Amino acid sequence: MGITQSVKRAVQQNPNGYATIFGTRTRRWTEFAERVGRLAGGLHSLGIGSGDRIAILSFNSDRYFEIFAAVPWAGAVLVPLNIRWSPAEDVYAINDSGAKVLLVDDAFAAMLGAIREKIPSVQAVIHMGEDATPLGMTSYEQFVESSSFLQDAGRTAEDLAGIFYTGGTTGLPKGVMLSHRSLWASTTGGMSVFPTLTGDFNFLVAVPMFHIAGVCCAMFAFTLSATSVILPAFSAERVLATIAEYRVRAVCLVPTMIRMLLTLPSLSATDLSSLRLMLYGASPMPEQTLRRAIRVLPDCRFIQYYGQTEVSPNATALSPDYHVLEGPNAGKLESAGRALSCCEVEVVNAQGIEMPRGTVGEIRIRGFNTMLGYWNKPEETAATLRDGWVYTGDAGRMDEEGFLYVVDRIKDMIVSGGENVYSIEVESACLQHPAVSQCVVIGVPHSTWGEAVHAIIILKEGEQVVAEDLIAHCHRLIAGYKCPRSIEFRSEPFPLSGAGKVLKRQLRAPYWEGRQRQVN
Amino acid sequence: MGITQSVKRAVQQNPNGYATIFGTRTRRWTEFAERVGRLAGGLHSLGIGSGDRIAILSFNSDRYFEIFAAVPWAGAVLVPLNIRWSPAEDVYAINDSGAKVLLVDDAFAAMLGAIREKIPSVQAVIHMGEDATPLGMTSYEQFVESSSFLQDAGRTAEDLAGIFYTGGTTGLPKGVMLSHRSLWASTTGGMSVFPTLTGDFNFLVAVPMFHIAGVCCAMFAFTLSATSVILPAFSAERVLATIAEYRVRAVCLVPTMIRMLLTLPSLSATDLSSLRLMLYGASPMPEQTLRRAIRVLPDCRFIQYYGQTEVSPNATALSPDYHVLEGPNAGKLESAGRALSCCEVEVVNAQGIEMPRGTVGEIRIRGFNTMLGYWNKPEETAATLRDGWVYTGDAGRMDEEGFLYVVDRIKDMIVSGGENVYSIEVESACLQHPAVSQCVVIGVPHSTWGEAVHAIIILKEGEQVVAEDLIAHCHRLIAGYKCPRSIEFRSEPFPLSGAGKVLKRQLRAPYWEGRQRQVN
Repeated sequence: MGITQSVKRAVQQNPNGYATIFGTRTRRWTEFAERVGRLAGGLHSLGIGSGDRIAILSFNSDRYFEIFAAVPWAGAVLVPLNIRWSPAEDVYAINDSGAKVLLVDDAFAAMLGAIREKIPSVQAVIHMGEDATPLGMTSYEQFVESSSFLQDAGRTAEDLAGIFYTGGTTGLPKGVMLSHRSLWASTTGGMSVFPTLTGDFNFLVAVPMFHIAGVCCAMFAFTLSATSVILPAFSAERVLATIAEYRVRAVCLVPTMIRMLLTLPSLSATDLSSLRLMLYGASPMPEQTLRRAIRVLPDCRFIQYYGQTEVSPNATALSPDYHVLEGPNAGKLESAGRALSCCEVEVVNAQGIEMPRGTVGEIRIRGFNTMLGYWNKPEETAATLRDGWVYTGDAGRMDEEGFLYVVDRIKDMIVSGGENVYSIEVESACLQHPAVSQCVVIGVPHSTWGEAVHAIIILKEGEQVVAEDLIAHCHRLIAGYKCPRSIEFRSEPFPLSGAGKVLKRQLRAPYWEGRQRQVN
Repeated sequence: MGITQSVKRAVQQNPNGYATIFGTRTRRWTEFAERVGRLAGGLHSLGIGSGDRIAILSFNSDRYFEIFAAVPWAGAVLVPLNIRWSPAEDVYAINDSGAKVLLVDDAFAAMLGAIREKIPSVQAVIHMGEDATPLGMTSYEQFVESSSFLQDAGRTAEDLAGIFYTGGTTGLPKGVMLSHRSLWASTTGGMSVFPTLTGDFNFLVAVPMFHIAGVCCAMFAFTLSATSVILPAFSAERVLATIAEYRVRAVCLVPTMIRMLLTLPSLSATDLSSLRLMLYGASPMPEQTLRRAIRVLPDCRFIQYYGQTEVSPNATALSPDYHVLEGPNAGKLESAGRALSCCEVEVVNAQGIEMPRGTVGEIRIRGFNTMLGYWNKPEETAATLRDGWVYTGDAGRMDEEGFLYVVDRIKDMIVSGGENVYSIEVESACLQHPAVSQCVVIGVPHSTWGEAVHAIIILKEGEQVVAEDLIAHCHRLIAGYKCPRSIEFRSEPFPLSGAGKVLKRQLRAPYWEGRQRQVN
């Protein structure tokens, strides 16, 4: 259902429950909706109406949640900006979307001066931070207080809800247009694998709100009339402390974050007994990390989601039933699960013909969760959205029971001597060595084979292994042509995207300087 | 998701599981989808394509399920006809929809001669019965065998899925146009209150497939990749026997059917221990019947749905958590529950302004589950669908936690001496008398008060009560002006609609001959 309708339903069913908790500030659902209606009224008074774009550049806060509801309430379109972007990328997306209003928090208010002249479509800048409002900006709280309550604009299923930019760390960001229908389909499809939740429910929001994973958190919380306990940004220590302090029942994280939590010294001393549901996705989950998480949190159920922004974002899920270490359902931990009720998922060849079960091909998705297209990019839209299918760019295979295994990004696949090598498989083999903490496998140029398998390794603290031994270890687990030909040890962390994904292209770049990869 | 996409997903996830069981005939999902594709191919060879209407006049069968998927698979539109209708009503709906193909089973093949001349749009009649195919009709099995498999037409969210006629027992039937989006929203919204279901799942389908409740069963079963155990029609004895024979885990019934089950002498001797989920709706559930059902089936969880065809049909649900006789969640058994995640539900006055909590008004519904409109009836559409809201014609109130209480059809409300009397409240009072088995309360003309409250009673076998005592019993439970002024005892069953609803208008008619009710 439309974002605003979910908010109104939450108010009806849980008027006195908390909608948001942010530091010491709490808002009950009734107050939350009242503020949302006033914010929408304020936007209306600025001349904002049906289909106008509103950009947000901010760390997480309760205000981000209010804006998330207020923008469609006013009939307008959300444009959340990536907090990791350079100012040039911000300028690009603001201009590309033609945003009329920009909301910034304290962290980004300072840099605004540098770009203000370059974003002429922006008529007003609203300061949503906690510090004093800078000159030339409107104070968020004053905006809420001085505006009158507007009735919900009543956006319908096919109306544009938001433009969510992807990419941007390389090449120009693309604005994924999601409708209220697609966001709701992903939300309700995603919730169809939830265990039964009873009583008051709270969600810890530690993934960035600009990212579709954060949007997904908000959609779940709104639909469940639940409380969102919001952190400005992810910090492993704060996540642990917050779960204990607020007796948090559900959390959504990306695998890198889960790995960080599990290695914290304070883990064993923290009371995590309240946790009932851990949702994760957005990048592959190493099986070892998952096994450890299942053992550490025996009362918690796990759901893995697979998808991408273009499908709002959930397409498949590995349900709690398959997050087990023994019994008839065991053995699926490497799978991204099965198609959710909101979509079809297929593995196809380059001609769009479905591959036999077990054979790797490109994953495509079609359903009520698919995007409307890329904003202002008809060619890119036509390339990705064909006959209703979103072509994901992910390589994967499916088993006889419909479980999907994502093996690689097609562009990260290594073609060595004519054989396809999936980096995930090699990484998984390396990670099984007791000395290895993290591992990234890329293709590097090779005069004979085209590409050679290259592993970049971060060792566990105090552990040692030489390249030869690690390669020998891999030979015991996977075919010879898949094993690393060269190994690089690294001590600094891997470069990550805003969503916590390793930026393989950045790791690959120095090796390919002046050359052209076939897939790039 | 579109009906056909759900079928394809079921095949992917449960290829060897049974899709349908009908008598001794079983079909696995792979075979089911193969037959659906061939049926669609057959329709295609008859010239059927995008948006063409296909009418079905049949008792339940596995073939009805195949047709339910095959019609959208061919890009066409379902028009299920009410099996209780007169031939004149069938003719009306076939002509109104302009159906090009008609499918009939044995029960309706015989009557076809009488109407064949009157339905010129019908180009082909397919015999889906078990007996020999009558002259002039195409054999269903031959049609499946001789046709080649067609690729799914890929109907999208806003495409018309079916025209579902309502009414018809009085006045002209109205064709409710439901999209794939609206049917999926109701299905997935409805499933959001399901308890966690693990392992193979089967559904007993005993409600008629032409009715939206039957459609809802098919949608649930498709979405869950479950097995449908199908009965041609409801029979209390067969339902009990089938639950025991097939270890049925879920069933969808209307309250009248549940009451019949609970009064069967064979109940206590039947093994119902497999039953985990009982869904019910389509008419008010007397609390006494519900309490008895909860006691008789301690391992079964219950969900009540409220809605109507115009919302595909689910709008609210009383979830399993509130089907309890004690504890903090007790006391909600008279409620139809809360708005599902697919829609907003409000109680409004004649001006469309929301009523204060606890005050009776008209129930309206807006969400992704709302109909596209009435087929060929722009005026009726404009009257019912206003600003995106479906005005239900039901009177109800809402409590502070968003629980809805449906008190009456607005047209069944009795206005006596200027006071509104809700028949359900009076019926509930009468039903609390130990001698009363069933009760219907209607308004009859009264010279002083306009209308007077009149109760029609069916006593339990062997029980006796005189009118004065029953009226006195009501005075102990409800306000004086709500109590029946007159009582009529009846031995034959109440007239029921095809969906098992009591036809109050028919019971009221003899009293109002030659007069005009204010609301009719």
